[in-house]
Amino acid sequence: MHGKNRIGFNLSNQGTATLHSINPATAETREGPFSEATSEEIELAMAKAETAFDTYRNTTPEQRANFLEAIADEILGLGEELVMAAMQESALPEGRIVGERGRTMGQLKLFANLLREGSWVEATIDTAQPEREPLPKPDIRKMLRPLGQVVVFTASNFPLAFSTAGGDTASALAAGCPVIVKAHNSHLHTNELVSDAISRAAKKCGLPDGVFSSLAASGFNLGSTLVKHPKTKAVAFTGSLGGGMALYKMAIERDEPIPVFAEMGSVNPVIFLPEKIGSEGAQLAKTYAGSIALGVGQFCTNPGLLIAQEGEALDQFCQALAAEISELPSATMLNEGIAANYDKNKSASLQQNGVEQLGASKAEVPQNGASPAVARVSAQDFLANPNLQHEVFGPYSIVISCADDSQLMEVINHLHGQLTITFMGTDNDFKSFETHILTAEKKTGRVIYNGVPTGVEVCASMQHGGPFPAATDSRFTSVGSDAIKRFSRPVAYQNAPQFLLPAELRNENSFNIWRQVDTEWTNKSL
Amino acid sequence: MHGKNRIGFNLSNQGTATLHSINPATAETREGPFSEATSEEIELAMAKAETAFDTYRNTTPEQRANFLEAIADEILGLGEELVMAAMQESALPEGRIVGERGRTMGQLKLFANLLREGSWVEATIDTAQPEREPLPKPDIRKMLRPLGQVVVFTASNFPLAFSTAGGDTASALAAGCPVIVKAHNSHLHTNELVSDAISRAAKKCGLPDGVFSSLAASGFNLGSTLVKHPKTKAVAFTGSLGGGMALYKMAIERDEPIPVFAEMGSVNPVIFLPEKIGSEGAQLAKTYAGSIALGVGQFCTNPGLLIAQEGEALDQFCQALAAEISELPSATMLNEGIAANYDKNKSASLQQNGVEQLGASKAEVPQNGASPAVARVSAQDFLANPNLQHEVFGPYSIVISCADDSQLMEVINHLHGQLTITFMGTDNDFKSFETHILTAEKKTGRVIYNGVPTGVEVCASMQHGGPFPAATDSRFTSVGSDAIKRFSRPVAYQNAPQFLLPAELRNENSFNIWRQVDTEWTNKSL
Repeated sequence: MHGKNRIGFNLSNQGTATLHSINPATAETREGPFSEATSEEIELAMAKAETAFDTYRNTTPEQRANFLEAIADEILGLGEELVMAAMQESALPEGRIVGERGRTMGQLKLFANLLREGSWVEATIDTAQPEREPLPKPDIRKMLRPLGQVVVFTASNFPLAFSTAGGDTASALAAGCPVIVKAHNSHLHTNELVSDAISRAAKKCGLPDGVFSSLAASGFNLGSTLVKHPKTKAVAFTGSLGGGMALYKMAIERDEPIPVFAEMGSVNPVIFLPEKIGSEGAQLAKTYAGSIALGVGQFCTNPGLLIAQEGEALDQFCQALAAEISELPSATMLNEGIAANYDKNKSASLQQNGVEQLGASKAEVPQNGASPAVARVSAQDFLANPNLQHEVFGPYSIVISCADDSQLMEVINHLHGQLTITFMGTDNDFKSFETHILTAEKKTGRVIYNGVPTGVEVCASMQHGGPFPAATDSRFTSVGSDAIKRFSRPVAYQNAPQFLLPAELRNENSFNIWRQVDTEWTNKSL
Repeated sequence: MHGKNRIGFNLSNQGTATLHSINPATAETREGPFSEATSEEIELAMAKAETAFDTYRNTTPEQRANFLEAIADEILGLGEELVMAAMQESALPEGRIVGERGRTMGQLKLFANLLREGSWVEATIDTAQPEREPLPKPDIRKMLRPLGQVVVFTASNFPLAFSTAGGDTASALAAGCPVIVKAHNSHLHTNELVSDAISRAAKKCGLPDGVFSSLAASGFNLGSTLVKHPKTKAVAFTGSLGGGMALYKMAIERDEPIPVFAEMGSVNPVIFLPEKIGSEGAQLAKTYAGSIALGVGQFCTNPGLLIAQEGEALDQFCQALAAEISELPSATMLNEGIAANYDKNKSASLQQNGVEQLGASKAEVPQNGASPAVARVSAQDFLANPNLQHEVFGPYSIVISCADDSQLMEVINHLHGQLTITFMGTDNDFKSFETHILTAEKKTGRVIYNGVPTGVEVCASMQHGGPFPAATDSRFTSVGSDAIKRFSRPVAYQNAPQFLLPAELRNENSFNIWRQVDTEWTNKSL
C-alpha cells in the first residue's frame, strides 16, 4: 500500500489531506492514509492524458486488445490481496467478489475480442464517381474514432466491475481514449491495487504515460474539477439520480458541453400477468424474494415495483412474498451512507398514503445493515403519488395492485423511464396483454420475459440504459460491447490518400472487417 | 394557398395573429396571411403525434419506405408552383432550387432504400446457453427502435433540403418518429406546399393522423413551447450557434432532458500546403473564390479561413484571390436579417486587430444583398483574437498567414470544432505534413483532401457534424443515412416469445438483413 494518487506512470502525494479505507461491517478504519489529489495533481493527470491521446488514439486495435488482456491478467495476478480488499471495503461476500473479478476480466476480454474482430468501427465507404452529372461524386469513407480523454466515476455497488477497471474504463480504453478515474472513497485500497495493475499493463504494452490515471479526494471538488476541465471530452457515471444529474448539469453548462453518460438506476417494474400469478404464485414469490434481496438489493436493476391485478391470486402471492421476506437475513450494506439512506428512504416510502408493509425480515440488523421489507399499495394511490416511483436503493419493493387491465395500462403509461421492465406470464397472458407489453417498451431499455431483472449479461445485445431518468441518454448503453460507442465519434475522410486513412478504411481490408461499401455489406477488399 | 397551420390531416387557423411571405429581392410582401399557431393548436399537434406514435412506431420498414417515396412524388408533383415559391422566398436561382428539390427527393429515397435494406437497425442476437455455469445465459436480442416524436426546426439556407421535408424530417420519419415542424418564417409558402404534400402522402399510405404537423409563428414562443413540451422526445436544428444553443439549453433544463442535435455551422478551415500553393496558386484562388461565393456564401460548409505559410506563393495567391473576388457579383441573401448580419459581422471582422481587406466585389449591391470580400491576418493576430473564429455567414473569408510549420500547428491546435477541415496539397505535402493532418482530425467531423468544403454528399459515409461548436453532439450526423440514428435508441428483449419480437429480431430473418448473431455477422436465419 502506497496511498498515493496515480498520475500516469507516476505516484504522487503532494497534498496534506488524506482519506482512509473503512470496513463497513465493523465501521473501523482499515487502511490508509490515502492522499487526496491537489489541483496541481489533477492538472498534471489531465495534461498527461492529453499528450497520451495523440499516441494512444493511433494505436492498432491489436495493441489496445493486448492492453485490455494485460489488465485482466494483472488483476488476476493480484490474487487474494485484491479479493480481501474488495470484500472488506464493500462487505460483499467472497463468492460475489470472485465472481465480480471474473466479470471484470470478462468485460476486458470482451472488448479485446471486439477490437480484434474490428467491425464495431462502422467502416463505411462510398467510392468516387468522377463521371457523375451534374457534379462528380467524391470518394468518402467514414469510421468511428476516439472522442478524447474520458473521466470515469466509479460505482459504490461494484467495487471491481463498475469501478477502476470496470466497463466504463474498459470501453473508453478500447475506443482509444485515455481514462482518468475518480476513485470511490469506499474502495480506496481496491482502487489502488487495480490502478497499479492497469499502469503495469500499460507499461508492459509500451503505451504512453498518461493513458490512465486515478485520483482520490473527499468532497465534490475533485469530481467537479474533472468534469469541468476543458481537456475532458466525455464522462461516465453509474450511481444515483442526484449524483448523475449534478455531473450532467456541470458538463452541459461548460463553454464546450460534453456528453455525460450517467446510468442512474431505476425501479425496474415487474408485471405479473393473471394466468401466471394464478398458477405459480408461490414459486414467483420465492424467486422474487431472492431477486429483491440479492446483493443486499444493491443493484441498479433491483425490482422495486411488483405490479399485478388485485384478487385472490395477488393476495396469495403477497402472503407468500411476505413469508419469504421474513425469513431473509439482514446484511451489511456497502457503506454507512448507503445504509442510512436505505433506512430513511424505506421509512419515507412506508409512510406514503395507502402504503402498508406486507412483511419484513425478522433477522437482527448488523452494523450498517439493511433489513429487507416489502409493502403494498393500490394503483390508485400509486398513480396519485410521484414519490412512489423514487428508487429505494436496497432490499425493498412495493406491490402495486391494479383494479383491472385498463388501470394496469394507466400504471404502465405513468411509469418513468426504466433500465428494465419485466413481464411474468404464460403464452396466453402474453397474447392477451400484447398492447400492454408494446406500450411498456416505450418506457425501458430492456424488456424481460419470465426472468428477474437482476443479472445483466455482458454481451453484444445487452442494453443497460433507458429513457430518462434511468440514464441521461437512452441512445447508449453502459454494459456490453456497444458501450464503446459512447466514447467514439464518426470521422469522414473525403478523397484521402490511402496512407492517410486509418487501416480500417483503406482499399485493402487488412483486418478483414465487415464494411458497408457503396451500401453493400462486405468483408472483402476493394 | 390556405395560410393555415397543418395539424395532422387537418388545417387550423384558430388564432388572430398572422405572418406574411416576403420576397427578399424586392422586400415586398408576396403571399399571406399565414395564421400563427395558438397554444391550443400546438397542444393538439403534440397530442396527435403522441397517438400516432403508437401506430407509426410499429409500421413495417416497407410501409415507411413507401411513405418517404410518396412524399418525394408529391413534392415533384407540386411542379412549378413549388419552384417559384422557394425561389421567391429565398432569392435563390431556379437552377439551385431545382437541384435542391432533387436533393430533397434523393434524401427521402435514400432513407427509403435504407429501410428496405434494413440492416441499419443494428440487430444483435445472443442466443441462450441454458447449460452455462454458474448461471444460464438468457436469450437477448437488441435493435434500434424509434425515440418518439421529434421537433424539426427548418433552416433558412435550404428552403427544401433542410426544411419541411428535409433531411431531419426524412430521417425522423424513417426511424418511426412522428414529426412536428416549426416552419421557417422566410419560407411560409414553400412550407405550406410541402406540408400539404407530406400530409397527402401520409393519407395515401394509410398512416395515422398526426404523423406529421407543421406550425408557424413569429417570435420565440412557438419554438420554446415545442422544445419544452413533455411529449417531445428529440429536437433537430440547423442554423446559428446562438439559435442552436438556445434550444439546447431549453432541452437540457427540462425535467426530462432530451437530445438536441443542433448543427451550428463552422468556419471550415482550408489549409494550403507549400508545394501545392507554390505550383497552383492561381487555380486555387479561382476555385476558392467560387467556393466562397457559392450560394452567396450561405452554406454551413463555407470556407471561412484559408490558412497557409507566408511567403511569395501566399502573396501571389492572395493577389489572385483578391482579383477573383473583385469580379464576383453581389447577390440577394436569404432574408433581410441575414443580409444585415452579414454586413455587421463582416465589418466587425475587418475591424479586428491586424485584419486587412484583400479585395471585395466591385459589383453594385442589390436589396438585401451581400458583397463578397476577403481579408488577411497574421497567425499571431489570429491566435490572439477568438473573435476571428466566429462565423461570418456569407461570402467572406480570411486568409491566415503562418510564419512556419510550427505556427501552423499552433493554429490547428487553436481551432474550435469544425464541420470540415480541408487540406490542399501534393503527395509530398501530405507526407511532410502528416502530423498536422492527424492533429486536425481531432477538430473536425470531416477531413477533405484537394476539394472544397461546400458540397455535402448525401450518402452512407457522410459526416455532417463535428466537435462543438460545430454541433451539440459530435457522435451524430445530420446528413446521410446515419442521420436516422439521432432518433433511435436500442431496446433489448430478453427471452422474448417470437411473436412479441420485432420482425428484425425473430429467428426467421424475413427481411434478409445483416445481423450480429453470437458475435458473428450473418444475413441468415437462426
